[in-house]
Amino acid sequence: MSKKLKIGVIGTGRIGKLHTNNIVKNFTNVEIKAIADVYADQAKDWAASLGITEVYNDYKKIMNDPEIDAVLICSSTDTHSQFTIEAANAGKHVFCEKPIDLDVERIKATLDAVKKAGVKLQVGFNRRFDHNFKKIAEMVKDGKVGDVHIVKVTSRDPEPPPVEYIKVSGGIFLDMTIHDFDMACYLSGSEVVEVYANAGVMIDPAIGEAGDVDTAIVTLKFANGAIGVIDNSRKAAYGYDQRVEVFGTKGCLEAKNDTPTNVVYSNEESVSTDKPKYFFLERYTGSFIEEMGLFFDSIINDTEPPVSGIDGLNAVLVGMAAKKSYEEKRPVKL
Amino acid sequence: MSKKLKIGVIGTGRIGKLHTNNIVKNFTNVEIKAIADVYADQAKDWAASLGITEVYNDYKKIMNDPEIDAVLICSSTDTHSQFTIEAANAGKHVFCEKPIDLDVERIKATLDAVKKAGVKLQVGFNRRFDHNFKKIAEMVKDGKVGDVHIVKVTSRDPEPPPVEYIKVSGGIFLDMTIHDFDMACYLSGSEVVEVYANAGVMIDPAIGEAGDVDTAIVTLKFANGAIGVIDNSRKAAYGYDQRVEVFGTKGCLEAKNDTPTNVVYSNEESVSTDKPKYFFLERYTGSFIEEMGLFFDSIINDTEPPVSGIDGLNAVLVGMAAKKSYEEKRPVKL
Amino acid sequence: MSKKLKIGVIGTGRIGKLHTNNIVKNFTNVEIKAIADVYADQAKDWAASLGITEVYNDYKKIMNDPEIDAVLICSSTDTHSQFTIEAANAGKHVFCEKPIDLDVERIKATLDAVKKAGVKLQVGFNRRFDHNFKKIAEMVKDGKVGDVHIVKVTSRDPEPPPVEYIKVSGGIFLDMTIHDFDMACYLSGSEVVEVYANAGVMIDPAIGEAGDVDTAIVTLKFANGAIGVIDNSRKAAYGYDQRVEVFGTKGCLEAKNDTPTNVVYSNEESVSTDKPKYFFLERYTGSFIEEMGLFFDSIINDTEPPVSGIDGLNAVLVGMAAKKSYEEKRPVKL
Amino acid sequence: MSKKLKIGVIGTGRIGKLHTNNIVKNFTNVEIKAIADVYADQAKDWAASLGITEVYNDYKKIMNDPEIDAVLICSSTDTHSQFTIEAANAGKHVFCEKPIDLDVERIKATLDAVKKAGVKLQVGFNRRFDHNFKKIAEMVKDGKVGDVHIVKVTSRDPEPPPVEYIKVSGGIFLDMTIHDFDMACYLSGSEVVEVYANAGVMIDPAIGEAGDVDTAIVTLKFANGAIGVIDNSRKAAYGYDQRVEVFGTKGCLEAKNDTPTNVVYSNEESVSTDKPKYFFLERYTGSFIEEMGLFFDSIINDTEPPVSGIDGLNAVLVGMAAKKSYEEKRPVKL
Repeated sequence: MSKKLKIGVIGTGRIGKLHTNNIVKNFTNVEIKAIADVYADQAKDWAASLGITEVYNDYKKIMNDPEIDAVLICSSTDTHSQFTIEAANAGKHVFCEKPIDLDVERIKATLDAVKKAGVKLQVGFNRRFDHNFKKIAEMVKDGKVGDVHIVKVTSRDPEPPPVEYIKVSGGIFLDMTIHDFDMACYLSGSEVVEVYANAGVMIDPAIGEAGDVDTAIVTLKFANGAIGVIDNSRKAAYGYDQRVEVFGTKGCLEAKNDTPTNVVYSNEESVSTDKPKYFFLERYTGSFIEEMGLFFDSIINDTEPPVSGIDGLNAVLVGMAAKKSYEEKRPVKL
Repeated sequence: MSKKLKIGVIGTGRIGKLHTNNIVKNFTNVEIKAIADVYADQAKDWAASLGITEVYNDYKKIMNDPEIDAVLICSSTDTHSQFTIEAANAGKHVFCEKPIDLDVERIKATLDAVKKAGVKLQVGFNRRFDHNFKKIAEMVKDGKVGDVHIVKVTSRDPEPPPVEYIKVSGGIFLDMTIHDFDMACYLSGSEVVEVYANAGVMIDPAIGEAGDVDTAIVTLKFANGAIGVIDNSRKAAYGYDQRVEVFGTKGCLEAKNDTPTNVVYSNEESVSTDKPKYFFLERYTGSFIEEMGLFFDSIINDTEPPVSGIDGLNAVLVGMAAKKSYEEKRPVKL
Repeated sequence: MSKKLKIGVIGTGRIGKLHTNNIVKNFTNVEIKAIADVYADQAKDWAASLGITEVYNDYKKIMNDPEIDAVLICSSTDTHSQFTIEAANAGKHVFCEKPIDLDVERIKATLDAVKKAGVKLQVGFNRRFDHNFKKIAEMVKDGKVGDVHIVKVTSRDPEPPPVEYIKVSGGIFLDMTIHDFDMACYLSGSEVVEVYANAGVMIDPAIGEAGDVDTAIVTLKFANGAIGVIDNSRKAAYGYDQRVEVFGTKGCLEAKNDTPTNVVYSNEESVSTDKPKYFFLERYTGSFIEEMGLFFDSIINDTEPPVSGIDGLNAVLVGMAAKKSYEEKRPVKL
Repeated sequence: MSKKLKIGVIGTGRIGKLHTNNIVKNFTNVEIKAIADVYADQAKDWAASLGITEVYNDYKKIMNDPEIDAVLICSSTDTHSQFTIEAANAGKHVFCEKPIDLDVERIKATLDAVKKAGVKLQVGFNRRFDHNFKKIAEMVKDGKVGDVHIVKVTSRDPEPPPVEYIKVSGGIFLDMTIHDFDMACYLSGSEVVEVYANAGVMIDPAIGEAGDVDTAIVTLKFANGAIGVIDNSRKAAYGYDQRVEVFGTKGCLEAKNDTPTNVVYSNEESVSTDKPKYFFLERYTGSFIEEMGLFFDSIINDTEPPVSGIDGLNAVLVGMAAKKSYEEKRPVKL
């Protein structure tokens, strides 16, 4: 493919801006042709600084532009399935942020549309491309731990989001743990068949009043017989805690936290090191670039994207089962 | 107390020998006056090498010796409650290996007898005295993590015991996880109120045929609102994996594995360090000595022993609930 | 400064290409207007892929271009002083790769020309901008270790360069250790006043035949009374070993090696982690970008560059003293 | 040897008490028959608590006791050579604390007397038996680092000794670095042939007034071509810093500091761990026991002791050369 891949980005909130910046800086064979946002006026200066001049209020201009090969859907969750379907119908490849939708039927309809259109769909589980987790997944696949017995994911945020956000988030299991469900499946090389959620409101009563929990331990059974556990907190005093562990017949793989530096300071008090990188923007800088590169590769080489629509569906299904488990205080099968 | 504390030891298997050796080497104000074992003949030479000359087949000689202040019960589990009751009735303080019994009513009867006799009873949860775990428990008590939200215990053995042992062990939850239940309570500063056990036979089908499991993830709810998780395996390729983590509002405390050395070897392949200390004899060397010293202190100073009979009862209750949870595939309240 | 800073790059070997790529990808307010290389033909395609169309054989075209604000001198060492002087005379700011020259008088003449022209000169000691080392330098400056007593630098390459390169390199002290001399001064906040070099040929006799050594321990005395030591090897089996340590009255700061991942693998053999990042391109990726950004900042804001010509001179002086010390088998004062 | 080895201990300061306690607790086949100290009265209660009843003012009673097989010389340095000679002449094996003497001729006379008497002599370089350093020495011997190129020893005390002690200590190189000289030889598997000492008074001017230094970097050349460096401080704010590193053709071995626990504490400030074990009594607990056991083994099995008189002589020779190097500001050959 000698000509540049042409991209349209819908939604220029934090994640839309992140992808746009990454593409401009890192992929010389890709051009962001147009951007759409309901607040287009606010995005124009930023876009111009990156050399992007087509900035629309109406996302349909992207859908209707025959030059655009692929669309990045970075708008609010409730628009993901609709925009994906429209883009697929317009013959465009789609990168869609997670989750595809919070309604299983709509997800299925979306996947059907994608399949029918024969376009690529990649879902934004960027953590699969993190240097640490990817290495572990590869070593698991290479048999370094033998048969997988136990998968553990620790995922704790430095600060809870605003309660207003939490109210429309679908709840911790579909908003936050969904990444960890995908990670657990990715690392185990299998699918979740049963889930039990143990959770509570420990950080902020307002989160409970919003109908959500802020601290959780979720146990998993996988189709291949392995078992797993995820622990989540919306607030870790020391920052973003992102660790995983895969234990099997031949050994154990652990990913420790990344830190800004490798400096060790010894004084009268203690021997101390950096806290983990602050939050996902710092922690997953590389993985966001990597996922985008692999999306482009799958288009250019006509191969399967590394995270499929089915992966997106599965994580939502597990999230819903976890929510049900928590509400009904019992393990739930998928 | 100017005179030496006089001790009788019942049972000279691995753990009885361990305590005896530790006492002879470390406590100059304590004398092991007599030892009883059904195979007394086999113990005589070893006892003599430590300067212990009274070695009996009949444990009752210890019970009936008015000079003996305290008894260490290191015989098989099915004798623990009976011997504890007899010793208490004879006015002797008791150190009893875990579990006190596998039957709750017998445990209660034992605790009643101890209470009535007004003697000390300490149960052998030695891991509370491990340098790492003790420090974490103290830091939790000092408020270093604030309110406890999540407690995690990883406990994996290097090798499963013989299947013959497993058959009479009471199952993984009462034989192996029981230590971790006590640890979880100790670290959280609270009691378990609900348990859910996710487990399977992954290491050896013979363990399954014996009616047990070999790999487990057990989630816990504590009375103080915290939640917890324990993961167990009967066989970790890299040795004895004993780690804990306590997460709360102000931070997180983790105990890493102990290793034989702190040597780091960098070569063409990797940067490598020692595996964890092989098994509990190496890993908990210090904690076995410490628990004995504190038992003696509680007698000499007439204070409460650091691990009570109630602690012993509680861990069994959680173990039974975990077993039930696994069998009935549902969370079980205590 | 609303208009873009315009840059010319002289020399497009490994380091010239690196800086050029970094500038194109990271500095939207900077434009590389022209490139010069004696093998211009070989650089054209690469330059075009970055949108650079002016590629000359003759570096003088850069010197004579009135639109060019600053020149990056990435050509061979023997041209550094001449090109710096010409650029300064043409009123252009200069970023010059280390060393400025291997002749002290020529360095002085270069610094004089720069001073007379009133342009900025920054020397390419990029390691000062490494995240680890910069943090240590800042903490030292903040008094975290109190008065500095001991500075230690470990600097070992994964592979020796070709012997042909070594022959014209000026020797290990001026080619390799020169970075460490600058680092030692940077970390100590002082200057070297005496040096003693202990060295040998241990890796490859051909290096010895070329009149150089491949393994060295160099001890330093600083003007502020502190002492220091650098150890070098041209070949570490496990990769690029880049560590520093600063010890003082209040404590100690150490920078450990960076690794590609933070994955820990435990198996029957050992507990292992990644080797250090392979070589300087991987290890100092960020520092090369940072040094360039600070060079541009110093021009835009008319401030002192973070590494001065005097820093460049000093490191050469120490390197020469080290060479003399090795040859004369005695400590040498500066 | 069915009967117990009978030992006499001369000198019951800190180190004499340490060895005595270790022997009583750890070696059931060894009996401490008698103790001598010029302040015998002050040692009697302590000795009695260990079951030792023969406590003399006059060390000659030990020399003259035909039942005593071996003597531990733990008295002040100026008596070491004399007592060793007397013990050897009396046909007793000798364990002598370091240094044998501060006068080379007296050391040689001592070694001659030992040789003539045909008794064992072991010198108290206990650090060779430290778990970390011993493992490194064994791995070096096993060829794990290939040919040794660089040996590094970091040895820093938590607090300087009293100035009164320093005045009679022989100076830092013979009092403190002497351990590190032995360690460097032990790890390199070779002998020091040249030394250069870079040092200063940085901690306490009173140390300088006493004619000594408190901070030093000493570079070494070994007979096998390797080079090495030792860095010392009399006062590290964070405790006892005892690390070594051996670098060779195939890789690198490092011994990190030992810590009281392996607990990691993450909070808003940092991720912190324990400081190193406080001082030599905590850090080298095991090595003191191990060296004594190997001394007894060498007597019982009639083999060479693991640290010979020659080792003791060599370390003193290097220490003297270092002192000379510092005084004459030049490298000194041995």
